[in-house]
Order: sequence, then structure tokens, then C-alpha cells
Amino acid sequence: MFEVVKRDGLARIGKFHTRSGVLETPALLPVVNPKIFTVPPRELYDEFGFRALITNSYIIKNNADLKERALEEGLHKMLDFEGVIMTDSGTFQSHMYGEVEVTNEEMVQFQKDIGTDIGTVLDIFTEPYWTKEETAKSIEVTLERMQVACDMKGEMMINGVVQGSVYPDLREYCAEKMATMDVDVHPIGGVVPLMEQYRYLELVDVIVSSKKGLNPNRPVHLFGAGHPMILALATLLGCDLFDSASYAKFARDDRLMFIDGTFRLADMQSLDCNCPACRGHTLESLKKLTKDQRTKVIARHNLYQITSELALVKRYIREGRLWELVEMRCRAHPALLDALRRIKEHSEFLELTEPISRDGAMFYTGVESRARPLFNRYEKRVMERYVPPTDKAAIFPDSGKPYSRAWAAEFDKVRRSGYTPIVISPFGPVPADLDEIYPLAQSLFPKLTDAETENTADALTFDFIEKMGFVEVKEYDEIDNDGTMEYDADQLRARAISNYQFGIEATNALFRGKIDIVKSRKTGKIRNVISDGEHILSLRAGDGLYTLRAEGAARILASVPSPFMRVVVNDDSVPFVSEGRNAFCQFVLDMDPEIRPMEEVIVVDKNDKFLATGRALLIKKEVESFKKGIAVKVRSGNGDEA
Amino acid sequence: MFEVVKRDGLARIGKFHTRSGVLETPALLPVVNPKIFTVPPRELYDEFGFRALITNSYIIKNNADLKERALEEGLHKMLDFEGVIMTDSGTFQSHMYGEVEVTNEEMVQFQKDIGTDIGTVLDIFTEPYWTKEETAKSIEVTLERMQVACDMKGEMMINGVVQGSVYPDLREYCAEKMATMDVDVHPIGGVVPLMEQYRYLELVDVIVSSKKGLNPNRPVHLFGAGHPMILALATLLGCDLFDSASYAKFARDDRLMFIDGTFRLADMQSLDCNCPACRGHTLESLKKLTKDQRTKVIARHNLYQITSELALVKRYIREGRLWELVEMRCRAHPALLDALRRIKEHSEFLELTEPISRDGAMFYTGVESRARPLFNRYEKRVMERYVPPTDKAAIFPDSGKPYSRAWAAEFDKVRRSGYTPIVISPFGPVPADLDEIYPLAQSLFPKLTDAETENTADALTFDFIEKMGFVEVKEYDEIDNDGTMEYDADQLRARAISNYQFGIEATNALFRGKIDIVKSRKTGKIRNVISDGEHILSLRAGDGLYTLRAEGAARILASVPSPFMRVVVNDDSVPFVSEGRNAFCQFVLDMDPEIRPMEEVIVVDKNDKFLATGRALLIKKEVESFKKGIAVKVRSGNGDEA
Repeated sequence: MFEVVKRDGLARIGKFHTRSGVLETPALLPVVNPKIFTVPPRELYDEFGFRALITNSYIIKNNADLKERALEEGLHKMLDFEGVIMTDSGTFQSHMYGEVEVTNEEMVQFQKDIGTDIGTVLDIFTEPYWTKEETAKSIEVTLERMQVACDMKGEMMINGVVQGSVYPDLREYCAEKMATMDVDVHPIGGVVPLMEQYRYLELVDVIVSSKKGLNPNRPVHLFGAGHPMILALATLLGCDLFDSASYAKFARDDRLMFIDGTFRLADMQSLDCNCPACRGHTLESLKKLTKDQRTKVIARHNLYQITSELALVKRYIREGRLWELVEMRCRAHPALLDALRRIKEHSEFLELTEPISRDGAMFYTGVESRARPLFNRYEKRVMERYVPPTDKAAIFPDSGKPYSRAWAAEFDKVRRSGYTPIVISPFGPVPADLDEIYPLAQSLFPKLTDAETENTADALTFDFIEKMGFVEVKEYDEIDNDGTMEYDADQLRARAISNYQFGIEATNALFRGKIDIVKSRKTGKIRNVISDGEHILSLRAGDGLYTLRAEGAARILASVPSPFMRVVVNDDSVPFVSEGRNAFCQFVLDMDPEIRPMEEVIVVDKNDKFLATGRALLIKKEVESFKKGIAVKVRSGNGDEA
Repeated sequence: MFEVVKRDGLARIGKFHTRSGVLETPALLPVVNPKIFTVPPRELYDEFGFRALITNSYIIKNNADLKERALEEGLHKMLDFEGVIMTDSGTFQSHMYGEVEVTNEEMVQFQKDIGTDIGTVLDIFTEPYWTKEETAKSIEVTLERMQVACDMKGEMMINGVVQGSVYPDLREYCAEKMATMDVDVHPIGGVVPLMEQYRYLELVDVIVSSKKGLNPNRPVHLFGAGHPMILALATLLGCDLFDSASYAKFARDDRLMFIDGTFRLADMQSLDCNCPACRGHTLESLKKLTKDQRTKVIARHNLYQITSELALVKRYIREGRLWELVEMRCRAHPALLDALRRIKEHSEFLELTEPISRDGAMFYTGVESRARPLFNRYEKRVMERYVPPTDKAAIFPDSGKPYSRAWAAEFDKVRRSGYTPIVISPFGPVPADLDEIYPLAQSLFPKLTDAETENTADALTFDFIEKMGFVEVKEYDEIDNDGTMEYDADQLRARAISNYQFGIEATNALFRGKIDIVKSRKTGKIRNVISDGEHILSLRAGDGLYTLRAEGAARILASVPSPFMRVVVNDDSVPFVSEGRNAFCQFVLDMDPEIRPMEEVIVVDKNDKFLATGRALLIKKEVESFKKGIAVKVRSGNGDEA
């Protein structure tokens, strides 16, 4: 059972409930060699705070002594670890050393017998150099074995490993099949060679294609990913679990992991590390330790690097800024830059879970920022939903934000001559009336632009002008200032924002008869929109978008057919939602697939009767899949506006 | 007395000798308030390893009690600090609170009297909003006061503060004047408002214009710069010293510094910090401390962030990779990205100290990497120094490196048809014969290119083809494979590298008569060049460039007039250098201004007689200014090749 506590696009902080406790994700599981504890499991739990580890059931099974102890005492006692224990099945050994001498059934049964919390099917490791045919064939074997494992698992949770080598369609196919089975966790397998060879570009494709096929309600584990430098990237793409054998393997090899790479002790010129393991050590003192002592210090150093980075990843998710951490991290190596650049290919998929707005401002930190899904979200909506109030456009360059303050006098002048002011921003064309919505106002760009972003902005503006059907387009300073046309800036703005946020059809339903605009005395900004005496919309100061009021919701329900903006709940939850309680996933019957996280929604019963307004936390695919958690944060039920 | 131990462009690890010990730079001096010790100076020394601090003489002078103690005991005893003590003079107070009631003479005398190691002139803080005239006038006052301070200083070292607001020419003028005075350290002053307002773009101009005017042999101190996030950038531009009052000021305000920004305790959702100050604390436990206790923990946390980052900066300097750290750091905020992008404007100045080669590979981590001076160095040299062996060019796309291996068969085919193979790389045009020199082979680029770098490469290739006078240019796959022209790839390569490295004139002197090429049996690469039976050049495997042999040096001396490639030493050092000892700055009489760090040079006596070959560590301006340190790492003297 997995629930999402906080999300940032595909990234999420989750709670994974197991019989050995609740594991907060993203989490990394240190790999513990059952033969030698480089860092004892008890210390992993007490000192480092690891609540889960992974060990290898195949090694245990093949060692008479370990096997006997594991069967007798159970894994938790044998390892002296009270947290969650996951076991691998021998698949990785088959990748390393060729065929293994066990069957899937034997391995699943053995894992059950030794008390593993999360066991693993004996899947087939799809090597990156395999042909597509070879890969496809082996996936069928893995799927068969998976079905057997699911039938056998009993109380044990089971890993359903997504294979498919570097073939995105095979990855997605395998993931889709796995998603239909009674699986608890989805490792993405067969990726270690890609990571070892710095093939991060392909790793991005592998993760995204797997995510496309999987159920959102199961944690996704990137098998073998343990270097701190890729944790942020993999989390951004929706991975929840990681594991690291390298913390110990590298330590035995005198190699220290840092966020910007791995360094050999022999090559280092000073230690310069403030982590609890290194504290008090110099390079010289470390070198003077015995091999065993040194391995322990370095392994602990490596674990501290991992815990630090994971903590930072969580902080950035909470702040809604994970993308920005990834942009920093992917500058550590050109192969990571390739990964960052590759994400652009998947922006349509990422847009599905991209929130409508965030609390903080977006930082543009390089041309790669332009691949963020909030850019193509804006491009698409402004093209489809903007309705120009006049048929002439005045083009303005970017300036201080918000534009309507920076260009106040100039906007007024061109408007009086019948021109609609359009600013060429790094987002593309920004009509004056939209300049305060997220992310247009809530974003920071460098003063020094780059050719790529400038050219894209120009091209988008050109397309926009054509699409809008302007009959005349002028630079703002080429327009005579003798216009006398009258206009009401507040009315135009109120409607333009509604068109952008809810679409033209809903806006026509909302804006009826006489429109009164209530403005803040302090800021002069729009606060409420009153239509025919009814308060239909409130404008949020933070993101410049509307909160939908019950009266507004009623108008949309009356005019725009289902499923538009609807979240349909079952009869049981009608009384609760009507009282203003949140709508939970398990009670949702249906939902508009166009709803994005943080979007305004209307909660209705199965007869499309209004129950409440609120903001969606999850999208349709997620709501359908989760058994627990809030689908809609309800603002107020049944017209009893708070 | 300041010496450079290790350099990376303008950045340097130095040793600054003072009467209170040797200070390794880059160093940050914590600001200690003489009234309250947030962290006691003894702890700054013992626990954090700070070997220098800064305190304010104006505050001491204005407090009867402190004044009496300071005059009686001396500053070191009063603060209980055995390291280097620098004092500020009241200038910053005048910026904060308006005029101060002391004279320059009083302040310099008082600083001497209390035993300051490095005192400061009472300069005039040039505010960023001042007019140019106002700024220019105030600089003259500062310069007058500086002369007085220099005359008065005695045994005390003195800070010569570079002012000039945001006017680069005034900064450079002020720096040049200061450089002629008997000053020991050069703070760049008046920059705190720029940093507070995130005007990092202008900060780059201020630092570079100051550096242009200053002597390389004095440490440069960026006054008031203490946030870890700008230490890498400022060091890259040649700053050696920093100071931080904010570690304590922010702590009193419950603000924690991190490498990616400053965060209020109240806004943080978890602590997640492994530094020795935070270790054992949670956000909750920190909040529960008394205000005083909490301030101490946070101040110590802030200091640990600073020491971590400074250690990292030093590591990157030692590895010759500081540029790459800066590129990562400047992604933390769009204003820092502006600073990174601004550096491009100064690449001509940065090229002067850019080494000819480095030990490691260059990482391209974004379009901003293209501003690195090694790019324009290559562009300039290939345009000026390449001599095409045929008058037809075959154009190849970028591929796996080195190109001569990736395109081996294709290069041969087009050459047999009389075409010179040219690869369009991110560096611009790369003739086949140059593909193994630094940084062409020793660099990593992402597979996914960007428009800016692609367009630049195309444009440079176009210019190159025009400049070289090719009469025919074809894509490599448009060329018939029936050529029969003979060519000697080794001969072409040997000469092309020499042209690139030493220029055409020197190459004509070097390559005389019969040329024999000795190749490595293992790698098949060129090792030695023999001309008329004399071993003139050896090719280094690491950077693909030549080591000049004595026989080669003799030919250059005989044919290319002084000062080309020469470093002239005085008579005293003739015997030492001839024996193969290094050439030290203080004995150098003259030097070719075109020599760059790590370049091959010929050490001669004042009659242009050959003494030794070696590699320059410093450029002419530096050698002239340093009293200590190695100018040329001598390889072998007087023809006794090692």
C-alpha cells in the first residue's frame, strides 16, 4: 500500500506501508552482503536512519550456513534489522556470471520461507546489447515467471521487474503487463550496464517508457541506482526507490563518492569532507588506517553522501523545485547533460502531472529549462484559449515584470488606438491581460538571453499572431498615440484569465450579464468577479489564477457537458464532501482526464449534481489507481462558501 | 609577500606570508564583532581552521572599554586569536550610517597602535547609484588617503581598496594607481550593495576591471563576499580573500546558509544537514533552543557551509576544473547565470592566463561552456597557424574521438583524392592532423547538441574555409573514392601540430632537411621528431603537444628573433638554470608576452644564449610582479637532455 504525501510532477514523497513498518520514499536501500557487513544493519537503522535494506536471497540459499540460519531465525533476526527487508533473486548474478542453477519457484518459495518483506521474481536480465527479438522473447518468460510468483507470494510482497533493454516500446509493454498483475513494487531492471557506461540519455527513455506503462499506486525502484549524482534526476522522472551496493564496493576499492563524481583516495589531494564519517580525519590519517578500518570509514562516508542528497531531493520536492535541483546536478558530466536534454522528448508525458501552479517562482537556469512542461503547457493554452479583444496587435519587448506595471503607459496608449498589447517573453507571446498568471509573473530569467530561447519566443509569437488572425501587427513604438478607443482593462483581464484557465466554453457560461469587478484597495488587483450579482470567481494573489465559487460551478455544470472539470464521487461520500470534507481516491467514480494537479475542479454525484468545489491533487490515472489518499482538496461543499 | 602554489587560469592557491603566519588562499576571514563573539575566535582557529579573521577598528576605537583594552593588550590578546588579524577602518559604517567622525590618519595610526596585521585605509565607499563624476572625484580622495596610509603604515600591512562603483574604467584606473603604491592586499570595495541586490552580472565586470589594473603579486580581497554560492565564481575571476559577517548576522536572524541559497528556519520543513553543528539536531530541537543557543548553532552551521565550499573550490583548482564547479554553482539562480554568461565578454583577458593544456578532460556542461577561453584560443590559433596541405577540403561531421580513429578509412579515401579532411566539431573546424591535441581530444561533449554551439561551429568552419583559400569544398561522402594521391600522414601531422603549437615561422626553423618520425610500438602514436638526424621534438601522449628539445630550441634561437619563446634570466642564475634548476621570478629580466601558462619556453641569458628548455608557469605580467616563485619549470639545461 502506497500513498503520496507530496508531489512535484512525477516526483513524489510517499508512504509505503509494509508489514515491517512504513517506509518514506524516495528511499535508498543499502545492499547488505549477508556474508560480510561492511556497515552492520543495526547501524544502518540507528545511525543513518535507513528503514529498509536489500540483501541477496540467492547468495544466502547457496551458502549452507547462511541458509540454515535464515530458515531457522528468519532474515530480520539474522541480519539484526527491524526495518523493511527486500531480497534480490539471483537475476543480477545471472547478468554477472551467466546462468544460475535455481528455478523461479524455488527462489520465490525460499524468499517466503526466510521471511523477506519484499521478494523478487527470478526475472531475465535484458542486456543493452541484445536484439529486439531476443529481448521481446525473454520478456515473455519473465512475465510467465511473474504470474507464478504472484500466485505463490502469499503474505510476502513481490517485486515485478520491468525489463526491455533499451527498447522503449518493449519497456512500456512489459510495464503494462506487470501493471495488471498482483505486484507490490516495480523495479526497473537491467539498467546497471547503462549507468556503468554513462548512458544516461537512454536511461531517461527507459525510465519514462516504464513509467508510462505502470500503475501510479506502486513504488518504482530503479534497480542498482545508488550514486548520489543521479538520485535527483531519477526521482524527477518518477522513481521512488533506489539501492546501492557501491557504497561498500567502492569503499573496498578506496573510492569515495561525492555528489559530483567518485574519487580514488590515491588521486585525492585533500579530504575536505565534513561528514560525520570523515570528521576528524585527514587524507593522511585515512591512508594510515588498516584496510578494514579504512573501508568502514569510506563506506560510511559514501552512505552519508547518499543520505544528504536524498534529504535535499525531498526538500526540493516539498518546495516544488526539484526540476531546479536536477538542472544543477546534470552539470556534473556531459552525459548527465544529455539526460537533462533528453527529457524534452518526454515533455508531453511530463505535462500530464505538471501542477497548474506552484508556491515559488520558477528559475530559468539554462536553455535546458525551456524543456520544462510548464512552457509547452502555456504555449498550448494561450494558442487555443486566448481571444484577442481587437484585430490589431502591438508587439512589446520583454521588460521588468509584471509587464502591465512596467509598460503601464505604453499599454494604455496602444490600446486607445485599438491595438492588443503582446509581449515577446521567454514563454512566447504574452497578451497584456495574462501577465500576472503563473508562471508568467512567477518566474525569473537571466538578463542575458540566449539564441535558442530568443528564437523559440520569436517563432511562437509569429505562430500566435497568425493563429489569432490579427489583421495588423506593429512594434509598440511605431503606433501613433492619438487613439481614443475606450476599453475596460479589468473586464478584459478578468475574462482573459478565465479563458486561459477554464477555456472559452466555460468562460461564456461564467461571464453572464453585468460583470462587476471587486479590486483590492491595497494592491489594486482584481479580487472577485461578480456576474449578475453572483460572486462566481475569486482571484488568488499568489498565482494570479481563479478559485471557482459554488455559483460559478453551478453555471459550468448547467452549460458545459460532463466530464468537463468534474470529479464524480460515489453515494457514500456525498454527505461528507457536501460538508466540505476532502474527496478520497477510493470513492471517486470518474474524473475529467484533462484535469491537472492543483487545478480547480467541481465535485459532483453520479447524477452530475453539485457537491463541492476544490483543487485536484491527482490526475485521473492516479485517482483510479490509488486505494488511499486525497483526490480533491475540497474547499467548500454544497454552496456553503467558507 | 604572496606566492602562487597552484593556478587554474586567474584562480590560484597561494601562500600569503604575514607576521602572524602564512595564510593559504583562497581564504575566507570571518568577521568578528569585538563586542560579542557569536563564535569565539579561539574556536574559529581550533575547530574550523580559520587562520585569519577580520574585525572593525572603528567600532573598537569608539568604545572606551574596547579601545583601552586593545591599546593595552593588543588585538591578538584581546580577541584570543593567534592567526592573522585584518581590521576594517569605518568605511563600511560610512556606507551604512553616513559620515564617520574620524580621519584617515587617526584610523591608520590607531590600527597600528592596536597591533593589526593588515590595516585598512579610510577609503570612500563608492555607491552603485553614484554618477560617474561623483565616483571619479571620490576615487581621487581615496588615492590621496592611500598614499598617506602607505607612508604611515610601518610594519603593518595595508589594504589598498579598489573603488569605482559600477564603472569599469574607473575601477581599472583606481586599481592601476593602487598598484603603483606600497600596498599589501587589494580589497575590491563597494560591492556589498551589488551582492545584496543580486547584481552579479555587474559584479563580474567590477572584479575583472579591477583585476586588469592590479599587480598579480598581491592577494585580491572581495570585500563583504561571504556567501558560499559565489566563492567559486569570484575565485575563478582571481579573488583570493573573502570575508563573512553574514554567518553571524544571518544566524541572529534564524537564517541558514546553504550552497544553493539562504533559508529561514521558519520556512524549512526539515533540517537534513550532516554538518558537525547540525548533527544530532532536528528542525524541532533547533527551534526549541534558546535564542542564544540557536544563534550559536546556526552561526557554526553557516561557517561549516563556507569551509566546505572553500575546500571544494581548492580541490577544483588543483584538478584544473574550477570552471566546471562555477558552471554548476551558477545554476542556483538566474542572476548567477547572468554572471556566468557575462564572463564571455572578458574571455580575451581570461585567455592570457588560460593554460595551454590541463591534466584532465574538459567537460562541456551547457552553452555557457563555450565562453571558456580555451575555445577562442583554439579558434584564433587554427585560423592563424594552420597550413592546409592541399587546396581542397572534405567536410566531416563530429563523431567518436579521436577523429582519426573514428574516420580512419574515410580520411584516407578523401586524402587519396587530394582533399584535406576537416571535422566540424563544437570547437569549430578541426583539421584531421590536429585531432589529438588538447583540448580537442581531451574534452567531453553531450551527444545532444544545442543550436548555439552548432551554429557557432558552422560559422567558424565557414570562416576557416575562406581563410585557408580552399578552391573546392565537399561533404566527405560526395567524394569519389578513386584517388591515387600519395601522402604521409605522420609527416603531415607532425608539422601541423608544430605549426599550431609554435607558429609557422618556428616550424620552418625546426623542420629542416630529412624528417624522421619515431612512433610508439604500443600505441602507434608519434613520439619523436628527428630532423636531419637531430631529435628536435617529443610528443606528449597526454595532451598531444610537443616538448621542445635542446636541438629544437637552438634552431628557433638561430632563426626566430627575440623575444619569441624566450625567458631571459640574469647572470646570477645562468649556472643554476644551465644545470637544469628552475628559473625563479626574481631573476627573470624579460619574457615573451605571448607565452601562456604551461607553454614550452626557451630560457636564455641576456645575450640570447641558450640555457635550458622548460614550461612556463606564469605569464610575463606575473613574472615581473612576483618576488618569489617559479617562473619556468626547467626540463633540462644546456643541451643535457634528461
